[in-house]
Amino acid sequence: MIDYRSDNTGRAAPEILDALIRANSGTALGYGADEWTARLQERFAEVFETRVRVFPVATGTAANALSLAAISPSWGLVYCSEAAHINTAEANAAGFFGGGLKLVPVPGNHGRIDPDAFSRMLAAIAPGQLHRGQPAAVNLTQASDLGAVYRLDEIRAITEIATRRGLKIHMDGARFANALARLGCSPAELTWRSGVDILSFGATKNGGALCDAIVVFTPELADGLAVQLRRAGQVWSKMRFASAQLMAYVEDALWLRLAEASNAAAARIAGGIAGLPGLRIVAPVEANEIFLELPSETMDGLERDGFLFYRRSSTLARFVCRFDMTEAETDALVAALRRHCAAPARAAE
Amino acid sequence: MIDYRSDNTGRAAPEILDALIRANSGTALGYGADEWTARLQERFAEVFETRVRVFPVATGTAANALSLAAISPSWGLVYCSEAAHINTAEANAAGFFGGGLKLVPVPGNHGRIDPDAFSRMLAAIAPGQLHRGQPAAVNLTQASDLGAVYRLDEIRAITEIATRRGLKIHMDGARFANALARLGCSPAELTWRSGVDILSFGATKNGGALCDAIVVFTPELADGLAVQLRRAGQVWSKMRFASAQLMAYVEDALWLRLAEASNAAAARIAGGIAGLPGLRIVAPVEANEIFLELPSETMDGLERDGFLFYRRSSTLARFVCRFDMTEAETDALVAALRRHCAAPARAAE
Amino acid sequence: MIDYRSDNTGRAAPEILDALIRANSGTALGYGADEWTARLQERFAEVFETRVRVFPVATGTAANALSLAAISPSWGLVYCSEAAHINTAEANAAGFFGGGLKLVPVPGNHGRIDPDAFSRMLAAIAPGQLHRGQPAAVNLTQASDLGAVYRLDEIRAITEIATRRGLKIHMDGARFANALARLGCSPAELTWRSGVDILSFGATKNGGALCDAIVVFTPELADGLAVQLRRAGQVWSKMRFASAQLMAYVEDALWLRLAEASNAAAARIAGGIAGLPGLRIVAPVEANEIFLELPSETMDGLERDGFLFYRRSSTLARFVCRFDMTEAETDALVAALRRHCAAPARAAE
Amino acid sequence: MIDYRSDNTGRAAPEILDALIRANSGTALGYGADEWTARLQERFAEVFETRVRVFPVATGTAANALSLAAISPSWGLVYCSEAAHINTAEANAAGFFGGGLKLVPVPGNHGRIDPDAFSRMLAAIAPGQLHRGQPAAVNLTQASDLGAVYRLDEIRAITEIATRRGLKIHMDGARFANALARLGCSPAELTWRSGVDILSFGATKNGGALCDAIVVFTPELADGLAVQLRRAGQVWSKMRFASAQLMAYVEDALWLRLAEASNAAAARIAGGIAGLPGLRIVAPVEANEIFLELPSETMDGLERDGFLFYRRSSTLARFVCRFDMTEAETDALVAALRRHCAAPARAAE
Repeated sequence: MIDYRSDNTGRAAPEILDALIRANSGTALGYGADEWTARLQERFAEVFETRVRVFPVATGTAANALSLAAISPSWGLVYCSEAAHINTAEANAAGFFGGGLKLVPVPGNHGRIDPDAFSRMLAAIAPGQLHRGQPAAVNLTQASDLGAVYRLDEIRAITEIATRRGLKIHMDGARFANALARLGCSPAELTWRSGVDILSFGATKNGGALCDAIVVFTPELADGLAVQLRRAGQVWSKMRFASAQLMAYVEDALWLRLAEASNAAAARIAGGIAGLPGLRIVAPVEANEIFLELPSETMDGLERDGFLFYRRSSTLARFVCRFDMTEAETDALVAALRRHCAAPARAAE
Repeated sequence: MIDYRSDNTGRAAPEILDALIRANSGTALGYGADEWTARLQERFAEVFETRVRVFPVATGTAANALSLAAISPSWGLVYCSEAAHINTAEANAAGFFGGGLKLVPVPGNHGRIDPDAFSRMLAAIAPGQLHRGQPAAVNLTQASDLGAVYRLDEIRAITEIATRRGLKIHMDGARFANALARLGCSPAELTWRSGVDILSFGATKNGGALCDAIVVFTPELADGLAVQLRRAGQVWSKMRFASAQLMAYVEDALWLRLAEASNAAAARIAGGIAGLPGLRIVAPVEANEIFLELPSETMDGLERDGFLFYRRSSTLARFVCRFDMTEAETDALVAALRRHCAAPARAAE
Repeated sequence: MIDYRSDNTGRAAPEILDALIRANSGTALGYGADEWTARLQERFAEVFETRVRVFPVATGTAANALSLAAISPSWGLVYCSEAAHINTAEANAAGFFGGGLKLVPVPGNHGRIDPDAFSRMLAAIAPGQLHRGQPAAVNLTQASDLGAVYRLDEIRAITEIATRRGLKIHMDGARFANALARLGCSPAELTWRSGVDILSFGATKNGGALCDAIVVFTPELADGLAVQLRRAGQVWSKMRFASAQLMAYVEDALWLRLAEASNAAAARIAGGIAGLPGLRIVAPVEANEIFLELPSETMDGLERDGFLFYRRSSTLARFVCRFDMTEAETDALVAALRRHCAAPARAAE
Repeated sequence: MIDYRSDNTGRAAPEILDALIRANSGTALGYGADEWTARLQERFAEVFETRVRVFPVATGTAANALSLAAISPSWGLVYCSEAAHINTAEANAAGFFGGGLKLVPVPGNHGRIDPDAFSRMLAAIAPGQLHRGQPAAVNLTQASDLGAVYRLDEIRAITEIATRRGLKIHMDGARFANALARLGCSPAELTWRSGVDILSFGATKNGGALCDAIVVFTPELADGLAVQLRRAGQVWSKMRFASAQLMAYVEDALWLRLAEASNAAAARIAGGIAGLPGLRIVAPVEANEIFLELPSETMDGLERDGFLFYRRSSTLARFVCRFDMTEAETDALVAALRRHCAAPARAAE
């Protein structure tokens, strides 16, 4: 069996668990008042080249929903891609933590927001009208939920539109490292230098174990968020075990190496199946996910071959590469796809 | 320095972290659909001698607030001890997750609810009146927030009053193992056989690292809670790393051994200072916490001696024993208290 | 100036205000414990041919949002037409009162839900999956937000699909009387006999002044809703002044006469412009609203003529008839539309 | 029967209903965009000698809860008197609208907050600690829920403590006119000149019918509140009928004349029973309420005599005077109390 179901089905990077084990000595104050968490603040300030506040949290859903609640009033409209994880897969956590804020899906290609569509939608809401709530924030999923990556100028096109209307910007970086590795830019460029106020900093899907983080670039958001996290049950009393994981995650560029590995695996597969008849690569393979339009017979065949993956519909399959995917595993998928994509043609003869 | 600040300043039991490491092989479905979490259900069914649903969560605050939200409508009144953690230390997480439910403090001694006071308070709310909300649930902190332990008959006195009025019962078991070790009864007796519907099952304070759990005894509460946990950001995608910790926690009675050790340390201290002039043991030392009324000069002296502990007020100090407290450490505290309690008397001469 | 902007720009029916004045004598218990409110229960039981609970509320938004919160858990998905008022015009009140419930727009024509689309959308959500929330309720706007009316069999097609999946049914009857007048069926047939659990009973748009109501057909919803209304600030202490209005509204079939009048005005206009080149009637004119696709120059011309109406977009205009619209007023609109619809053709020569 | 149960059991002042009737002509834009509501803004600016925003709402509970939600984050602590209506009688509406904010009762006499107790309670919460939420606002009930009235210097003592800590100030003026009439100061002095940010402006208990209002003195609170009121279902589409009532309420000092009448009735009773053995006036009778400690036999006797009033406990009775209470009615109560208070003494012989 070769598992392409998700990057969350995978192992944690040993370096991260080692750090957790090493944190298990002595006593330390609870709820983030420990030395590990203090060093985490400093380390992320270096990584992002600015003073930030870093809050470890249990899950990406918590990171997203609490970030959005921090930048939108309860009557806010939060714009996001139609395919955004916050819109399709988090049980409306944003609406819950945000006291009834409303997600507004914006069209666009490959899981990204189209700036023109976004601009038109904002223009249609008069400031001060009461009946629809008020635009408050925009959410960018980077990498996107279809495996594409926003370029810096694409991000800035959106954040400029948003900022002109007074909206705040949240980036859902569940696969932030994958996007960063792809673009080769700095973490600062990808975030606050492009207008991002607050970031869901994903680690779990890229070799982490039990924590992600919220990174706050806009200082006035942090104090309220700190209390909200406490009452949201997202402040571990033994926080050092989370902070130590996040420290290890960025140490010696581990996070980028892990992301490069999973990106490379996806690219290798995409390269190997480019131009194959009988399938369509739905979005540019720019991170570690591949979405393919395939006949369901082809999917059946892959499953018989021992591949695990998700069927998003009867003709859409998702394959996700993990950091520890081997070339043998990616080559096996390529070979199988080639075999099956030839087969149906023959069958149809 | 000897640290009596809290049981959350301490290390995790190595067995628990070992289990986490061992879980790091192969791939596994996310969000609790893995084998570790399946086995956890079975294991806890044995521990509690009934079919239960176990949901690992990041923190005790999440366990408490989401449990209460599961058993109370948003207009509910939730009765708890005046000293209850949910009332004094969780930033009103219960009110937040519960959509505005209201905590109603009930008097009682040593952090416990007095059944007669509870009964009178319920009687004062006519069913069907609209102005105060409606009684919905009761919360028992076991062990209590002042270090005492409810006996089984004391629990049942309260759950009977509650059940007669249609209330559901939540037990905050942040120190459940300590109470269990103290009473020597079975987990079943301490919970569902005494009327408890839902339990915050604490592990962190007793040698855990990054997870606690909710244990549901009343089946109809579980399905809704499962969705609510997902949107609360409390369902880890790599759940196996949490479930593995909880499995290790109850394996070979580890949890009880850890609790017995911290209980014994506290008892040893309490025994050593019993009858000392110049201090008062505020509540029976039945778990791993000791609350002492002390002159602030005595507290100053202890701090100079290198003891770390919390000052709850100018005359109230809290000392918490961890599972790995040594006899040398407890004896040192006893000796210091004896020394200082003699000293002020001399100073006053 | 002839005002077609909305039915809420209009006067109240004098009979309703007279009743309010008549209620102003003697003293009466507050918060609905008065005789007027007691008689209201009986009167509506007759109107609906079954025991109901009637709760006067200040606005239709309150009626809708609190009804939905009563039939959906906070993690629920509430299906509604894309054009539904709850989705487009109430500032996500349903999400707020419902603790983060999510509205799911369903396609369909003329502001109605298409049963097949609804059925497919339900089928796409597996029971027990956690990631999207769970289907909980369906909302039917009757008459629809585009001026059409569901026939009884259309309602039942939807409520049967919903009920099979365990969903509850809410009807937004902001223009309930208009739909009733159109269909000629009984209030019972249009609601509980067709599967409706709870109704927003509109009066304001049909000659009311300051109150609408919630009518509960499914008894177990009522007690909790009563408390929720109290804390929502929707229970007037001097409730008699609201209940008296609602009594007058249904007395001697006043509500139906008012609705017939506004329906007739709309039908007269629709009849007068049928087949005109240069405009398109967007949806069947079955209640008191007319939606027209028109060139913006035509709209400009109508405004110059002194007609007030809403531009929903640059090519969509809404005209709403009130109960006191005269034939002269409707004929004036027809004449103007004929004039302008001829004009652009000439202008284009 | 003479009814002392509440000021909400009474009639509306005819002037107010007359104004409602007069508003029933012509058409007017909905949701507060009408001329009546525009004039209301101007009129209240004169009354309060400053620019204000006035929002008519259906009930005092809505006014209180939405005001508090406007000045407190969801993790806020809102300080109020132990006897405050928001704490004892509104089904925790503040917690609901405030997303889980927590009310903190402060001791004090006669339903008022004691400044020293308040100050000590604030000092006990360290800024930045996460575990209890953060102080956000203070609520003053004026007149108090025990019938007393804060003097200006008493208000300012509290608002100064609050403002130093960054708290906002809400006044629950359900009986604002009664307090104003008692103190003889200006509305400005009683509110923003004494530090009040936002006021629940009560009309219902003082001759109103179906509306109260929120008056905002701190401009930055108003825009968000406007949207929140819309989604709270508190913005009538036919707002003119509410605004017209409020205009009439303050016209020609009607509100003060009504309040003077009910205050005078209460004072007449208080004067008539002062010093009577067998009863105790619980709080200074400074508005229109009288709280008496009485033997329950005396209460039985009064009921047999045909007096209606509320028993707050077996020994505490509340009598409320309405604006249209006659001297005959007040004298009858005095006479009855004298008769019964003599009687028990004889019975005891």
